[in-house]
Amino acid sequence: MIKVGIVGGTGYTGVELLRILASHPNVEVRAITSRKEAGTKVADMFPSLRGVYDLAFVGPGEAGLASCNVVFFATPHGVAMAQARELVGAGVKIIDFAADFRLKDPTVFEKWYGMAHACPDLLEESVYGLPEVNRAKIKRARIVGNPGCYPTAVQLGFLPLLEAGVVDAAHLIADCKSGVSGAGRKEEMGLLFAEASDNFKAYGVKGHRHHPEIVQGLAAATRSAVSVVFTPHLVPMIRGICATLYARLTDAHVDVQTLFEKRYAKEPFVDVMPPGSAPDTRSVRGANVCRIAVHRPGGGDMVVVLAVEDNLVKGAAGQAVQNMNLMFDLPETAGLTAPAVLP
Amino acid sequence: MIKVGIVGGTGYTGVELLRILASHPNVEVRAITSRKEAGTKVADMFPSLRGVYDLAFVGPGEAGLASCNVVFFATPHGVAMAQARELVGAGVKIIDFAADFRLKDPTVFEKWYGMAHACPDLLEESVYGLPEVNRAKIKRARIVGNPGCYPTAVQLGFLPLLEAGVVDAAHLIADCKSGVSGAGRKEEMGLLFAEASDNFKAYGVKGHRHHPEIVQGLAAATRSAVSVVFTPHLVPMIRGICATLYARLTDAHVDVQTLFEKRYAKEPFVDVMPPGSAPDTRSVRGANVCRIAVHRPGGGDMVVVLAVEDNLVKGAAGQAVQNMNLMFDLPETAGLTAPAVLP
Amino acid sequence: MIKVGIVGGTGYTGVELLRILASHPNVEVRAITSRKEAGTKVADMFPSLRGVYDLAFVGPGEAGLASCNVVFFATPHGVAMAQARELVGAGVKIIDFAADFRLKDPTVFEKWYGMAHACPDLLEESVYGLPEVNRAKIKRARIVGNPGCYPTAVQLGFLPLLEAGVVDAAHLIADCKSGVSGAGRKEEMGLLFAEASDNFKAYGVKGHRHHPEIVQGLAAATRSAVSVVFTPHLVPMIRGICATLYARLTDAHVDVQTLFEKRYAKEPFVDVMPPGSAPDTRSVRGANVCRIAVHRPGGGDMVVVLAVEDNLVKGAAGQAVQNMNLMFDLPETAGLTAPAVLP
Amino acid sequence: MIKVGIVGGTGYTGVELLRILASHPNVEVRAITSRKEAGTKVADMFPSLRGVYDLAFVGPGEAGLASCNVVFFATPHGVAMAQARELVGAGVKIIDFAADFRLKDPTVFEKWYGMAHACPDLLEESVYGLPEVNRAKIKRARIVGNPGCYPTAVQLGFLPLLEAGVVDAAHLIADCKSGVSGAGRKEEMGLLFAEASDNFKAYGVKGHRHHPEIVQGLAAATRSAVSVVFTPHLVPMIRGICATLYARLTDAHVDVQTLFEKRYAKEPFVDVMPPGSAPDTRSVRGANVCRIAVHRPGGGDMVVVLAVEDNLVKGAAGQAVQNMNLMFDLPETAGLTAPAVLP
Repeated sequence: MIKVGIVGGTGYTGVELLRILASHPNVEVRAITSRKEAGTKVADMFPSLRGVYDLAFVGPGEAGLASCNVVFFATPHGVAMAQARELVGAGVKIIDFAADFRLKDPTVFEKWYGMAHACPDLLEESVYGLPEVNRAKIKRARIVGNPGCYPTAVQLGFLPLLEAGVVDAAHLIADCKSGVSGAGRKEEMGLLFAEASDNFKAYGVKGHRHHPEIVQGLAAATRSAVSVVFTPHLVPMIRGICATLYARLTDAHVDVQTLFEKRYAKEPFVDVMPPGSAPDTRSVRGANVCRIAVHRPGGGDMVVVLAVEDNLVKGAAGQAVQNMNLMFDLPETAGLTAPAVLP
Repeated sequence: MIKVGIVGGTGYTGVELLRILASHPNVEVRAITSRKEAGTKVADMFPSLRGVYDLAFVGPGEAGLASCNVVFFATPHGVAMAQARELVGAGVKIIDFAADFRLKDPTVFEKWYGMAHACPDLLEESVYGLPEVNRAKIKRARIVGNPGCYPTAVQLGFLPLLEAGVVDAAHLIADCKSGVSGAGRKEEMGLLFAEASDNFKAYGVKGHRHHPEIVQGLAAATRSAVSVVFTPHLVPMIRGICATLYARLTDAHVDVQTLFEKRYAKEPFVDVMPPGSAPDTRSVRGANVCRIAVHRPGGGDMVVVLAVEDNLVKGAAGQAVQNMNLMFDLPETAGLTAPAVLP
Repeated sequence: MIKVGIVGGTGYTGVELLRILASHPNVEVRAITSRKEAGTKVADMFPSLRGVYDLAFVGPGEAGLASCNVVFFATPHGVAMAQARELVGAGVKIIDFAADFRLKDPTVFEKWYGMAHACPDLLEESVYGLPEVNRAKIKRARIVGNPGCYPTAVQLGFLPLLEAGVVDAAHLIADCKSGVSGAGRKEEMGLLFAEASDNFKAYGVKGHRHHPEIVQGLAAATRSAVSVVFTPHLVPMIRGICATLYARLTDAHVDVQTLFEKRYAKEPFVDVMPPGSAPDTRSVRGANVCRIAVHRPGGGDMVVVLAVEDNLVKGAAGQAVQNMNLMFDLPETAGLTAPAVLP
Repeated sequence: MIKVGIVGGTGYTGVELLRILASHPNVEVRAITSRKEAGTKVADMFPSLRGVYDLAFVGPGEAGLASCNVVFFATPHGVAMAQARELVGAGVKIIDFAADFRLKDPTVFEKWYGMAHACPDLLEESVYGLPEVNRAKIKRARIVGNPGCYPTAVQLGFLPLLEAGVVDAAHLIADCKSGVSGAGRKEEMGLLFAEASDNFKAYGVKGHRHHPEIVQGLAAATRSAVSVVFTPHLVPMIRGICATLYARLTDAHVDVQTLFEKRYAKEPFVDVMPPGSAPDTRSVRGANVCRIAVHRPGGGDMVVVLAVEDNLVKGAAGQAVQNMNLMFDLPETAGLTAPAVLP
């Protein structure tokens, strides 16, 4: 059994990680830390876990993280990089849900997250945890930066087009819609039920931290200069992201359906739907799947990609477990086979 | 008092029209027809109208529509054009919520709605009821084709750019999101609460009837060839449309904020927000307003317009009353001044 | 025009009051105060009011409240009683949305609200603002304590039975369900969309502050000892309260339908539905109505009353305006006639 | 591997059964029937099952149900009893989701369901599938009538009190609230998103079919005459039932908390919460759990029980699988251990 530690874990990605790991055949959660909630039973904070975990939150000092095989950081930006060196030194692998190990260029990280990077050398060796791109590297990694929720859907949706070099990479549009849990479990006015329900709006119009992460990932897939207009919107639902992606074809003869099907033929967690489909977010609720449909409206030169995922699963905790499976040479799908909850 | 007749009226645009007219100082609703519900009191079908209307639905024959001053058709496509000639002959003005008098080219109508147009001559004289474009013509019209919900938001959002000739009209993108009431009050599986709630998806990806209406309106505003990719999505909310519009600037020096503010400076029902804003649909819930914000992400060559409206008000019944006010020389805002209901 | 001042007004009852007053023919909002938001335009905080109010929040000192005719306190408990003496002394009438002037017994107030009452003499002369009970007194009042949202529905639902003395007053049950806006506009974890959506639960099971207010109101209607079990629940909707009330009949022959119809025959804002009905909360969304149906399941000795209201309207701001109308000898329905927004 | 057949399966309990069985270690779904959808792949109707099931719906004749070990009927009332004799004769066990084998008295069945019972002898031998009451009988049963969603929660909530004889059984109140999926996957006006969302109402006030089932179950637990007032309400959420139960204590000294804890101490799927708790429905979303809290408000003579469940799981498909596990001597929890999905 792989010994798992979790730092943080009072947020939505934390409780989702606990839910997934509860059904994982090869792991044992040894410790979960929270300064604020030290002493509180996990099941008292999240009654959905009553009878599932007997574990209580402990302070960071008492967790014995150094004796775990892997530690997940479900923490705000900046926490993982502060503890990484010590844990890696103790032979512990690290999977960070935050941005500390996502952006390869420390100056970009500093610009968007407002803090210097604590360990640029570890950043250098860390791997961006998108298995559909970096599977081999993830298997050998000591530190994985788990991708953001939007970047996962946007990259999986654009990659086949960019890798094939069939679209104008300089004028990409990512019109994205996310359920409210994507904003985290925090007491903010705009996240109140009475504010967010029966409402729809764009947000982050002045710039969103996932933008540089998207650009980095797409740029790596093409030699062309990449430019993306990224507009996130808030949907009155709990979970789910739908990325509606627009690109202009530079090659009118490409068969985009076949392109996508071939690219993801062997991927266990990317599902390319038949022509004419439109995936709905509920079809992936609670499941580690990115479901994609691709269109050319009116047979014109614009290609429209629809990519949906559960922001807490393939967009966070599920993808993290997928990465863990790769890092420990387990079957990639271990613990990740339960179907989506519909309705 | 203007004598009003309503044909149809058991759907959402019908009950919304009744709600708005109840507070209108210059009208009296004389008759409302429904074959199926003849004899049922309006307030028995819509308890929100208990104590407001004593009216019952009557069959079309008994309604005495010819003695009304204006008849609203809140009916499926094809109904208004079948009755238009007789009513217009009797001196009754007509406002149609359906598509019968929206598309100027009868062959386009026939292609998208699967029926021949019953009165091409009346179509010829009829006016497309977007006051921000056709105010003068509406004032003189006998027949007004009330715009579709999506086309209202998309046109109001793109028009300033097209009229000024500052964008590439051949590559417009309209990524639109609508609440469920936009689909009407009909018993369809996909509209069930348990299907549409906590879910988000694109639909109509193979073509939507509002597409030719959008193209017609935009084409009239520019000499360039217009092409629009239009992707509608279903949002788990009752009311509201958010149109996120993308266009590439052909003139990098244009001040888009000023462009929009000037274009709509005198419009009572179009609100251009300050730079950096993102309108939310609830800010127009129940109100006859289209609220717009305009952006140039990263100062680049793409302009992003966010336009929200209540699909049942500025996107249907409210705009119809605005048209009626114009047609009868009433103050344009009569009956339309109540603020949005928030939260 | 009646000069209105509003203290507080950054919460949901505040913005609802502003919405209602905007359509009121006899009032002018002169000032609205907020220490925290002084300088912010009301329409910047609530974009639904753009173009409706040009007013900005001011600090309490600059508001000139003493020159208003009436001041509404949409503030936390304890604020109104601190300012009441001065304003009343200046001839200003007061309507308080909080509990300061609801509970006649200062010791009960102190027990439930944890503060001594600042002006027991003014409490003595103040009137509990339930027009269906205290209409005559409200007309002469200088200070009105506007009822709580739950107490309004529960009292209107039980009163006919208690006044007629036909039920066992010692074993009343009020199983109540409220939309989330009833909890106010505050950043609390349990009120987040991702917590409250797609969920249902009881709360306040250890005691709710509306309990003594309910008991006080019911006790005044009967000579019997009153005991009520009151269970509030949180519904994933924005607005609306449904009170399901249970009482055992002591008189098997009473015609409860007639009892309710007679009791409320002349009430403009209480609607008794026909036998066999079940009111839905959306039928009163945004409207100043309490809609009631009464049942005797299986013809047995239990009577079940269903009472719905919009917690922000008949349960707060609408009732406050109804009280203002009475206090200033205006038509009781002035500004309160707009139908509910459905769907 | 147990060979499973499913009759029906195009509704919500059907897709939920498929979801649960997909993770069950001991079963293989051999056939699923639907007259209407014969030929359609299950995963085309429910995209959440893409990659999970390759199965298509078949007509009833081609399903080979007689060679299955167990057949689940996720069908309307009346279907299972028509096919029961033949299947039982072939040695197939039957679990019916509908009411055919719930009500022991065929005349009661006939009264509420408007059809004569097709096989009163099989009804006689069949077992009501509430494991917490009938575990031993279920283990030996050939036919199990799976309980209704409301009756499961109401019985589990009242049983400890009735079995102990500490409440007035003649005046029980069950104020119940259900998510919309409880009404099934059918195209009904009242179930539309635009009708049911942001709304709350009672329904079935003239009598609900679950009433006789509740009474039958409670009566079996006590020698006293049982009378229950049962008021169902519709909650704008997809899944979940909350039963708020009221009973008057006849024994003031009983420790109700201990009573409940003892009664359910060994039950794997009934969770009695600590004193002072209020369970939320989301804490059981997707999980086969009934979570209960018990209160005595103000220490008085009324006991209030809060019981929540997922109507599609412990209220339908999960309980059916629990019954199957018992009938085939599998661990009772097989396939039912995944935690609830929260948020």
